Amino acid sequence: MATMADVAKLAGVSVMTVSRIINGSGTVKESTRKRVLRAMEEMNYVPKGYTKQVIQHEISTLVLIVPDITNPFFTFIARGMEDVAKKQGYRVFLANTDENINKEKQYIQMCIEFHADGVLIAPVGDDSKANLELLDKQGIPFVLIDREVEGVQVDVVKSDIIGCSRALVEHLIELGHRRIAVVTGPSNNRASRERVEGYLQALERNHLVTSEEFMKRSTMTRDIDPKFIDELLNLEEPPTAMFVANMFQYAHAVRRLGELGLRIPEDMSIVGFGNSDYLAAIDSAFTSAIQPTYSFGSLGTQMLIERIEGLHEMPRRIVLEGDIVIRRSTAPIL
Amino acid sequence: MATMADVAKLAGVSVMTVSRIINGSGTVKESTRKRVLRAMEEMNYVPKGYTKQVIQHEISTLVLIVPDITNPFFTFIARGMEDVAKKQGYRVFLANTDENINKEKQYIQMCIEFHADGVLIAPVGDDSKANLELLDKQGIPFVLIDREVEGVQVDVVKSDIIGCSRALVEHLIELGHRRIAVVTGPSNNRASRERVEGYLQALERNHLVTSEEFMKRSTMTRDIDPKFIDELLNLEEPPTAMFVANMFQYAHAVRRLGELGLRIPEDMSIVGFGNSDYLAAIDSAFTSAIQPTYSFGSLGTQMLIERIEGLHEMPRRIVLEGDIVIRRSTAPIL
Repeated sequence: MATMADVAKLAGVSVMTVSRIINGSGTVKESTRKRVLRAMEEMNYVPKGYTKQVIQHEISTLVLIVPDITNPFFTFIARGMEDVAKKQGYRVFLANTDENINKEKQYIQMCIEFHADGVLIAPVGDDSKANLELLDKQGIPFVLIDREVEGVQVDVVKSDIIGCSRALVEHLIELGHRRIAVVTGPSNNRASRERVEGYLQALERNHLVTSEEFMKRSTMTRDIDPKFIDELLNLEEPPTAMFVANMFQYAHAVRRLGELGLRIPEDMSIVGFGNSDYLAAIDSAFTSAIQPTYSFGSLGTQMLIERIEGLHEMPRRIVLEGDIVIRRSTAPIL
Repeated sequence: MATMADVAKLAGVSVMTVSRIINGSGTVKESTRKRVLRAMEEMNYVPKGYTKQVIQHEISTLVLIVPDITNPFFTFIARGMEDVAKKQGYRVFLANTDENINKEKQYIQMCIEFHADGVLIAPVGDDSKANLELLDKQGIPFVLIDREVEGVQVDVVKSDIIGCSRALVEHLIELGHRRIAVVTGPSNNRASRERVEGYLQALERNHLVTSEEFMKRSTMTRDIDPKFIDELLNLEEPPTAMFVANMFQYAHAVRRLGELGLRIPEDMSIVGFGNSDYLAAIDSAFTSAIQPTYSFGSLGTQMLIERIEGLHEMPRRIVLEGDIVIRRSTAPIL
């Protein structure tokens, strides 16, 4: 059975400090208080006269705000976050903005109302700046994942979208493709712009040019209007390959090409950013870049907790490598 | 510009009632108060001297508690819930129990702490009864999805797991399979027991028998020990087909059979409950039962809101049909 002294030792504080925290007397730094409460939880120490519930009540809550919880990309971030948060005694709530800036604002207000201790967020886009400032004004720490926001200097974890995009397009070029289309998401989203940047870099390195006709915008969520496929196929010289933004665009392309009687990869090679869930995509044909989204969640949460506990000051920017997985949706040009 | 009279009309109350709610004076039934606040939101009516934020503060919060947010089965429930909640002015938070009864308890306590207005929950299992009673004691309405709990009489939305299981196994029988294994999840989970029930019904209707050796248990989450495959293959007379619990078990089976050099469906036909996300599974080979999980979320939330607003008393039990989708993971026995 753990004693107050054991807790003090684990937390690296005096017994007096532990006692103050339990009794709510005196002034103790918030970061110290949290460390002590976690030590209590870890040792399963329940002070006499207090129920475990009273202690648990003090455990901090983190919130994950993502644009689309039905996209495995974001559910994997949740998984990584939960694993780190759980070990350190934090609870996690998830909220879904649907790529909607007003919904994002509502959830951020909600975080403020119930005194969330920290927020991990994949922001809707550049317009999220005003929402993030609300958090900042309340002193609630936050960390960005996947998408940076112009003018917001905080911790961020993302992957090398430019590098992955370049590698995917270079794979098509190596297979002999010269007419390569690119389909991205909204232009106010940095992750979209980076895809185009990688595409253009790959072409440039190989002394190829593209035309405006080959560059399409669509949405990144599941409700996609697949008209970009028809527009590309109706060109006088249609592309032989396309680089799509994510697995939703891929799925719509597969469906639409199937309806038109076209085969993948014989009639059209497709590459893109793929399903981060290896298990869900185990029999998929999609040649794709897989981003380490679990690490977005785990490292992002680690940085967030360090901020909450006042252990770090300077903004940190982590850019992780993605994996290029060659499957059956690409083939040499006939 | 909407007036107080417009709001009163839309909400079906007197102007006096609207005024009382805005001023927080007098006593108004909670269900009436919510209806009026929603009417204000809908008409974008902001009473003089009040900011919109004050009104939004009053918008209710629902919580969705699921065992595994990385399983598309549950993310689709979230999607359906969000769509209904959003239209009616409710916000949604998600929480993930990881099939862990203590984590479930923590999140339920959290719901109580921040006064959630209602909870939609896919409970861990029969042991969840005590957790659900905590909600009940606090008068927080809840609706069950996917899994019923023995001894808890509330609204529930689920699919016909027994019927789907029976149909999947009958498909195998029609293809000539006689040695059919079944792999389920934990026995304290009703959804597991119903799979076995459907399997046994299909065999019985076709005058077939099975043996204990063909009935395996594993987990339903992604961290599966695929030893059930090896155990089945090492039998003196191994099965020619297997019925697995979900897409995680399917994925592990695909991987393990691949490692062993066995082909699907030539060496082993596989059926099971599949990925509810049509888009994520667009090029999957898995012959599977697809449950209408979006409707679990949408109908469950509708029932939950009706409970919150005091519009319904008797428990309702909705059992939806699943879809059987025949793909390439099953073939006639050679």
